[in-house]
Parts: sequence; structure tokens; C-alpha cells
Amino acid sequence: GWSVRTHVSVNPAKLKSHRQRWNVRPSEMSKKTLNPIRAIVDGMKLTPNPEKPMIALSIGDPTVFGNLPTDDTVLQAVKEAIDSHKYNGYAPSVGYQKSREAVANFYSCPEAPLEGKDVILTSGCSQAIELAISVLCNPGDNILVPRPGFSLYKTLAVSMGIQVKFYNLLPEKSWEIDLQHLESLIDDKTACLIVNNPSNPCGSVFTKEHQHKILAVASRNCIPILADEIYGDMVFPGCDFQPLAPLSSDVPILSCGGLAKRWLVPGWRMGWILIHDCNYIFGTGIREGLVKLSQRILGPCTVVQGALESILNDTPPEFYQGTISFLKSNSEICFSELSTVPGLNPVMPSGAMYIMVGIEMEHFPDFQNDVEFTERLVTEQSVFCLPATAFEYPNFFRIVVTVPEEMMIEACIRIREFCARHYRPRSQDSHELDQ
Amino acid sequence: GWSVRTHVSVNPAKLKSHRQRWNVRPSEMSKKTLNPIRAIVDGMKLTPNPEKPMIALSIGDPTVFGNLPTDDTVLQAVKEAIDSHKYNGYAPSVGYQKSREAVANFYSCPEAPLEGKDVILTSGCSQAIELAISVLCNPGDNILVPRPGFSLYKTLAVSMGIQVKFYNLLPEKSWEIDLQHLESLIDDKTACLIVNNPSNPCGSVFTKEHQHKILAVASRNCIPILADEIYGDMVFPGCDFQPLAPLSSDVPILSCGGLAKRWLVPGWRMGWILIHDCNYIFGTGIREGLVKLSQRILGPCTVVQGALESILNDTPPEFYQGTISFLKSNSEICFSELSTVPGLNPVMPSGAMYIMVGIEMEHFPDFQNDVEFTERLVTEQSVFCLPATAFEYPNFFRIVVTVPEEMMIEACIRIREFCARHYRPRSQDSHELDQ
Repeated sequence: GWSVRTHVSVNPAKLKSHRQRWNVRPSEMSKKTLNPIRAIVDGMKLTPNPEKPMIALSIGDPTVFGNLPTDDTVLQAVKEAIDSHKYNGYAPSVGYQKSREAVANFYSCPEAPLEGKDVILTSGCSQAIELAISVLCNPGDNILVPRPGFSLYKTLAVSMGIQVKFYNLLPEKSWEIDLQHLESLIDDKTACLIVNNPSNPCGSVFTKEHQHKILAVASRNCIPILADEIYGDMVFPGCDFQPLAPLSSDVPILSCGGLAKRWLVPGWRMGWILIHDCNYIFGTGIREGLVKLSQRILGPCTVVQGALESILNDTPPEFYQGTISFLKSNSEICFSELSTVPGLNPVMPSGAMYIMVGIEMEHFPDFQNDVEFTERLVTEQSVFCLPATAFEYPNFFRIVVTVPEEMMIEACIRIREFCARHYRPRSQDSHELDQ
Repeated sequence: GWSVRTHVSVNPAKLKSHRQRWNVRPSEMSKKTLNPIRAIVDGMKLTPNPEKPMIALSIGDPTVFGNLPTDDTVLQAVKEAIDSHKYNGYAPSVGYQKSREAVANFYSCPEAPLEGKDVILTSGCSQAIELAISVLCNPGDNILVPRPGFSLYKTLAVSMGIQVKFYNLLPEKSWEIDLQHLESLIDDKTACLIVNNPSNPCGSVFTKEHQHKILAVASRNCIPILADEIYGDMVFPGCDFQPLAPLSSDVPILSCGGLAKRWLVPGWRMGWILIHDCNYIFGTGIREGLVKLSQRILGPCTVVQGALESILNDTPPEFYQGTISFLKSNSEICFSELSTVPGLNPVMPSGAMYIMVGIEMEHFPDFQNDVEFTERLVTEQSVFCLPATAFEYPNFFRIVVTVPEEMMIEACIRIREFCARHYRPRSQDSHELDQ
């Protein structure tokens, strides 16, 4: 014993506590960053029927089938930005002033005027949402999030230690907000209300009247709003998209948007926050907070920033109209096909690029829930729709209506076949048959 | 009293605690996101001498003067990616597999092989550093950061509640790490060692031997390394850039890099993390953590991703050589000019695009510190250099050597004039003069 000890030299470093063996573990934040869509999809057994080609109605990316290309003006604008050699260096972290002004001009209106200083350019609408939540909320606060709703809100909030409270949307009222339920959730730790209009996954578009009521709730309770308006202006003819900010006389609003959907270039990661603060409630604090947060990773790609002015001002109206009429036509095909399928209840959308379809689970005893239903729809019919459990809304599934028309039709035929095979009349009905 | 009270109807909403008046404040995190460069520069009175045109030697952006354009191959590659119409949709959040493989192939070597799965594409090297810190560290942990060093490490860490411990670099040893000091800082909350080589702001390049010693410290103490190698391969002829990972036999390394500096397109926001884990210490945990974190804002701009393979493989060697020989020549001009200026001690760099210059403050009694010194250099000579207080290293300033040669020369002449005007012999010397 002793003889061994005398050979151990006293190393001062060893006197301090430090790691004696490797133990590198992922951070709590990374473990708390959960993507429910990935979690659900990765847990599904997605083996298509080898006799039928796969039709994916699951991906919220309008570019995957090549039938909805962006406009040439958009591509040309970026190529010109590249050729100008002016957009290779660092931009300010909130974006070039000229590009911010282009966005401000595009969205400014007399009731909610915008200047360049009111625009923060971000790496996609995802970063816009991340910055908006980050600047408004502290760990321990809570935010109000639509159900069904886009999963990123929860993913981001939970990773930051912010609690998520879901308020209900009402399918029977075209997915309007259950305002009483919304208001009942508010407490003194509520830091932000997220309003998503037009809605992913519902494809719903709020009326002006409904938005006035939402604002009244926020105003009474002094809650700022994060308006996710990435599908803004993507509404079907006969319906009007009303941005939220022009209706507000006091509630401060961070409106998040980007090029992804309307200009059909989601991969370019060009997003923005429009700061609406007509009553000077955000003041300089929130603005400066956003600027500080933007300095963490700097802004979006400069050549896309350089192209923004031309993209916003020169894209012909026919391009937007073409996209919308395609989405409407496909939505109508899908809705009319599925609304006559026993056991399914599609809700006709008014915009965006989705349809939610209710499943009368009691008529499909072969399946426990929407996840099993959609899983088997792949196995048997090679059609993949996202189970709405991914949007916190079980017993529905979401269809993306950006696929080519013939695929949409074929998918509906297969869904009908699938439902016909698995549909069972309710036990009461079976009794009637038995008699 | 009572009659008034009876008029107050009981509103159930009022029974719950909620905000009665507006009180929207920026979050703690946004307040903790501090950019020291901005804080210092914004606090300086930067009024150039109207008789001399301004020369900014302060901005770490090689593109500002137009004398260092990127290669045509690089621009062409992005234009081809745009024309292909293949890169407008969402990429996986960690980047296209093909683009990840292109980066892996470019940096792979027998001692530290890389595959596509070892590469995470990010929105610039800033996000690479953010993700690397985020996945390795929890609030309450500490990280080891070079002094002088790039300020972003501290900005990010502090905003996440991570403590920063600065280890010294030694100007007299070409800015090698004071390894004893480094090791003395390690405790059981040390989650990560950041090594920046080649260095911003020093322009120093570590030898292989020195890097072996750094790895030995990390290995003994079981600390993973974040290697910020954004200036990798930007070293002067006669010197060799040695990436850290191939020298490691156990220490796991996240190497951060990107297109910004070597390809001269910092605004494009294309960065990456190379995961080196030869001894399986990160295991799947850190990899999965990085994937999860990447899903928060998705990856970098897809058209740049689509161009990566061609950018990395087709850019001619002459382009890189041209940049480097320009930087070397300008560094030599600057060093030789300033090394004969009484009161200044420039340290000759071996790479990157910076020179650090020591100020013998005792010889400049007109100024309290490097901030005042550089402020007055603007007022009198219209030359702006960043005070190294911005890099936690007072009494030095940093010169960016990417400016056109004639500007570099003119700036040095003006700095000489400025120093001559303000230089005072030490009191001992003055006594000698008095005698």
C-alpha cells in the first residue's frame, strides 16, 4: 500500500475536481427539441403496396412534384443579384435596408403603415417565429397555440422552457377559434398569442369579424400577438385575406411571413418579421431585442435579399392567380370526392394548401386511431397523408393539395376504396340489419 | 362604498389572475444577447477628419472594397443551381445528402475520414457555432474561449446561461495557447473547449506540435473541442494549415467552417459542422442532438447548397492562391510599416486576414486605452481599426488586411503620423533628456 502511494506524484491539476472519464451528453435543450411530425412518421410502418405507385399527400412543400414552379421573374431576380456582385458580403444582421424597405412597401397599408425599420429579415419563416417567441417569452411563461396547428410553435417553445397551452379551433365553424376557450387559458404568465391565418393544417381563412374578436380578447388581456401569416394572400377567389395588424387599434403584433409559400421557394429560407406597434406598446425594447437576437446567426442569404425588391415588385399577378386557382381546383376535387365517402368528413378550405379530413373512427374498427388509419392507407393503397395527431388533433388527417390533378384524383379513388373496405356500420345500424 | 360595489358584476374571467395593463418586455435571453463589438463601436465617437477620406480597417468582410471578388466558378455554380429548378423546395434540415457528401469528400483525409452523415449544413459558420455550443452545453456549464478571440463565442454562450472562461494566447509566442493557464481553468462544469485556428483576430496559425499539446490537455480532462476552422487553408506560403481532427486519437471534435472566408462570400450564409468522433465518444447522442437542433430553423439556402459540389470541386487553385498571396503581401506591408513606428508592436500573422498591433500605452499618455486611441485615430486620420477590447484584449488593435494595397499603405502612413504626434518618451527617458 504505502510503497505504491509514495510513487504517486502530487499533480496540482488533480486537486481540482474535473472529469476523469469521457461523458459527453447532448444538452437538455437538444433533447427538448422535439419534432412531433418526425416522431410520429418515424414510428409508422410505411411500406407501400408494391402494386401501386406511391402518392405522398403528406409534404407541405409545393415544389416536390414540379407542377408548381416559381415564376421566372423570381429566378431571374436572384441571378441578377448574383451578376451584380453587390450581394456577396455581410448584410446587417436584420437585412439590407433596401430589402427591408421593399418588404415594408409591399405590405404597408394606411391602417398599418410599415417602414424599413419595422422589418426584420430572417432565415425563413421558421427563424422569424423563433425570434418572435424568443423576444416575447421567458422560461416559465406560456404561449397560446392553435389546435390543430403547425407543430413548430410547440417544438420551439418547449425547447426554450416555455409552456404551450392549446386553444381549440372549431371544424364546424370553418376552424374559427373557440374564443371562450382561448380566453379561459390566459393567465398572468401568458406572454404571447399565436394566430395562424390562413391555417396550416386547416386551410381556413378568418373573416374580418372573427379577427376583430380575436383582437378584443388579446386587448382585454393585454397579450401581444404573433401572427403567422406565411400563407397570407393565398386564399381562393371569393374569399379575402385580411392581415391582422390593420384591424388592431392597440394590440402589438409581430407578423411572420416569407417567400416560401406564395413564391413557391421554401428552400431559399427568406422570411421576415413585420413589427406592428401602433400604440407604442412594444416600444424600443422589443425592437432592440429582435436586433440583438438577429446578431446570433446573422440574416438570410444575401443574394436572395438582393433579389427581394424585384421579386416583390415584378412578379406578375398572373403567377399568383395561377397558383391559387390550381389550389382551389384541386381542393374542390378532393373535397367533393371525399365528402361522399362514408366515414370521412373533409372540411372545405378557403386558402393555403391543405384540407383536413375527419375520420369517423367508430366506423373503422380495424384502426385504433388516425395514425393506424393513415399507416394502413400506405400499406394497402400507397397513399400517404399525415395523421393529424401530428397537429395535436387526433382522428383527422391532412391532405396537401399541391400535387398534380391526376394524382389528386387517383389518390381520392384509392382513399374511397380503402374506406369502403374498412367501413363498418355502427353497432346500432348492424342491429337494424340483423333484425 | 357599498352602492358602488353592487354595480360591479362578477366576471368569471376577472377571478383569474391576468394582466390588467400592457407590459410587454423583451425577454431575458434577448437582453443577455450582447454583441461587444457593437457595444464598443456604438459607444465611440467616430467623426472622421473631413480633410482625409475614411479608411475602414475594421470590418472582417473581405468583399467591401471589391478588390477580392469571389471566383466566377462560384457564381456560375449558383446560377446553374437556380436554372436547374431542382433546389427550390425544402432540403432536409441538415442539408441535402449530396451537398453533405460534397463537403465530406472535400475535407476527408485518411487520419480523419468523413462521410455525408458526419456533415451538418448550417446557415453560416455562426449557426454552426451556435448549434455546436447548444448541443454540448447546458446552462450552468462553462466553456473555454481564447483571449483575444472572436466575440461571438461569448455572445452565444452568455445568452444561453453558459459561463465563459477565457484562456490566454501569448503574443510573444505567435499567439500560441498558454496551456498551463488553459488547464488551470478546467473544472467539472467545463463542457467544451473552443479552439480557433487560424485565429480571428490574431491571424496566427498553430503548428502541429502545439495542436498535439492542446489535444493532450483536452484528452487528460475529457473535454470535447469545438474547432472554429472558418479560416482553414487561408495560410501564407511556407506555413501549413493543419486541421485539428486528424491529430486526435480520442478527443471528439466539432469542426465549424463555411464558404464565408475562403470563397469570399460571407453573406451567403453557408456553413457546416464536421463531426469527428474517432473514438465514438459523441456516440449517437450528439449527432441526434445536432439533427434535432437543426430542425428549429431548417438549413441554409438551398440554391447555395445545390451549388456546393461544384464550388468545392471546380474552383481553380489559382483563385485560392491569389487571395492568399494578396493577404500575405498586404500583411507584410502593414507589418513592416508599423513595426518601425515607435510605440506600436505589430505581430506578424501567418494566415487569415488580420494583424494585431500592440500599443505601448505608457508612451501615449493622451489616451486612456485602445478604445480612445482608435477613436482619435478616426478623428485625426480617418483610419478606423477595431480596438481589441472588443476581443477582450485591451491595449491592442486589429487591422483587417483585405483592403486594397494603396489603402493599406496610406493607412499605415497615417497611423505613423498619428503615433509620431502622440508618442511621448517614458518619464525615465524624459529625465535623461532633461539632464
